[in-house]
Amino acid sequence: MFKIRSLVTLIALLGSISAASAWEALPTTAPAPPGNPTTDAKIALGKMLYHDPRLSSTGTVSCSSCHNTMLGGEDNRPNSMGVNGQTGGRSAPTVWNSAFNTVQFWDGRADSLEAQAAGPVTNPIEMGMKSWDDVVARLEKIEGYQKAFDAAFGTEPISKDNATRAIAAYERTLITPNSPYDKFVGGDKTALTPQQVKGMEKVAELGCTGCHSGPAFNGPGMFQKFPVTSNGFFEAQHHFSKDKGLAEVTKKAENEHFWKVPTLRNIALTAPYFHNGAVKTLDTAVQIMAKTQLNKDLSKEEIADIVAFLNALTGEFPEQKMPVLPGTPGSNFN
Amino acid sequence: MFKIRSLVTLIALLGSISAASAWEALPTTAPAPPGNPTTDAKIALGKMLYHDPRLSSTGTVSCSSCHNTMLGGEDNRPNSMGVNGQTGGRSAPTVWNSAFNTVQFWDGRADSLEAQAAGPVTNPIEMGMKSWDDVVARLEKIEGYQKAFDAAFGTEPISKDNATRAIAAYERTLITPNSPYDKFVGGDKTALTPQQVKGMEKVAELGCTGCHSGPAFNGPGMFQKFPVTSNGFFEAQHHFSKDKGLAEVTKKAENEHFWKVPTLRNIALTAPYFHNGAVKTLDTAVQIMAKTQLNKDLSKEEIADIVAFLNALTGEFPEQKMPVLPGTPGSNFN
Repeated sequence: MFKIRSLVTLIALLGSISAASAWEALPTTAPAPPGNPTTDAKIALGKMLYHDPRLSSTGTVSCSSCHNTMLGGEDNRPNSMGVNGQTGGRSAPTVWNSAFNTVQFWDGRADSLEAQAAGPVTNPIEMGMKSWDDVVARLEKIEGYQKAFDAAFGTEPISKDNATRAIAAYERTLITPNSPYDKFVGGDKTALTPQQVKGMEKVAELGCTGCHSGPAFNGPGMFQKFPVTSNGFFEAQHHFSKDKGLAEVTKKAENEHFWKVPTLRNIALTAPYFHNGAVKTLDTAVQIMAKTQLNKDLSKEEIADIVAFLNALTGEFPEQKMPVLPGTPGSNFN
Repeated sequence: MFKIRSLVTLIALLGSISAASAWEALPTTAPAPPGNPTTDAKIALGKMLYHDPRLSSTGTVSCSSCHNTMLGGEDNRPNSMGVNGQTGGRSAPTVWNSAFNTVQFWDGRADSLEAQAAGPVTNPIEMGMKSWDDVVARLEKIEGYQKAFDAAFGTEPISKDNATRAIAAYERTLITPNSPYDKFVGGDKTALTPQQVKGMEKVAELGCTGCHSGPAFNGPGMFQKFPVTSNGFFEAQHHFSKDKGLAEVTKKAENEHFWKVPTLRNIALTAPYFHNGAVKTLDTAVQIMAKTQLNKDLSKEEIADIVAFLNALTGEFPEQKMPVLPGTPGSNFN
């Protein structure tokens, strides 16, 4: 009896979901900008640089330390930990599928992966290098990097621009297609459970996909206010409004508490949640978003259905070879 | 003329070197102890655990943070940096070929890779977990680890013993064969340059291989005093004697300043040198060892020859797939 009812529900839901035109599978490749066409040599160099802790002042923090390519593309921490155990106020966004973001960082202050890659390296509480000149000087001493830069950029010298181009080229390969959701959208109607289909319908009905739109559920190009409605209880508990988001960059009142719309892809792997990493579990995150953004009080069942659907956004992680990082003669770390 | 003279020198050296019977190529596999036969499932699990920063209190430090499998098996730092930016007094030994050490840690206090793997996880300045019970509790919450432990250990529960067995099984695969030296010893007399052959001969003649013996140049089972002769200049500069080595564990006067003989394999990649990482370059390390251990003052040429030979001990690093670490629901890091 239960199974039949589930099936009836499922068929009804399939009708309403297929009527919505916005559901799209994730592309399996990401386009490169005109100034930085993707090549195998750039990907190989970028993968080395991405995983090399020698790009930090202490030699202990690589891009992958906070945006971990062996995990969900981040570090499962509220705020990342940079050199000398320092922490900032924001949670590391996932690197997986970041190629599909039109802007980068929580506040969207970088307009490309290339621009983003330049930032953390010289941020004093992240990778702590004094300058990109120091990074370049360090790379120039490593024979293996000279060869890898030559392969990627020919006669051009090792430079900040070429290092960040290579890192961005590598990041454009970090795509996780073939999630249950993608298979479902592609025609395999058995790929989602009935509960996941219910959650998918609820996500559309509530309006979550008004902002979390597009195949990466990241509202390409979109900035949105969070929280929209101040909710005393959640605010007191999680201090979402302490950080003014985009306004911290622009200093404009109208940008206060505006944020890039983050992807929902692989969200089951990227706890804790929100820009400040204040919320430990996905069900609480869903409850808060519905209340603060849409002024809806969800039932426990609705939350469970949506979380089931969000779990269907976990994709397939491509097989990667570990880079063999070139050796350095001597040591300059203290 | 120069070439002919080099060739004559080379032939003379080949004669003396082949007369020494102690030169051995590195085995390509490492034997496992009776209690922990190596299996593919253990290697796979051990590789995941080895690279998982969630085995540290802050979620930021994995085994590979200090014993980096993408680099020379360590971190190129004088002293490693553990959780919250803390540092200790010793330099991380390389994990590559550690399977051929009969004892582990600089002071040799662990008699197996299994015993070694248990230590850093609960060391407050390394990975900082309060107890292995806490590690096990954390792993039990991760479904993917439950499956990986089941595959490796069947119905046995997740435990400290099984986690360290898996890590050790993985470490036994971290072998770097086919260095120029190995090829030379295997019969390819072109694998070393004439200078490297001169350095090889000098290493034997001076007596370096009296301690750095065996195919891994690590004096299996051997503890030796360092420095043997106190040299005021080097001691004042590098403070080698501040740390009492084995005696810090045994509290016995006769063990003061005794150390496990470290491997010379891949030494060109593992600057800085000595137990306290006080010496930045390989040529200075060679100069100091000759003086403090053998009371020999080497010429610049002799040092250059030995360093050339030591560079011939850099092996081939096996191709490794990055582990995909299983996701964790929620987050417990602060």
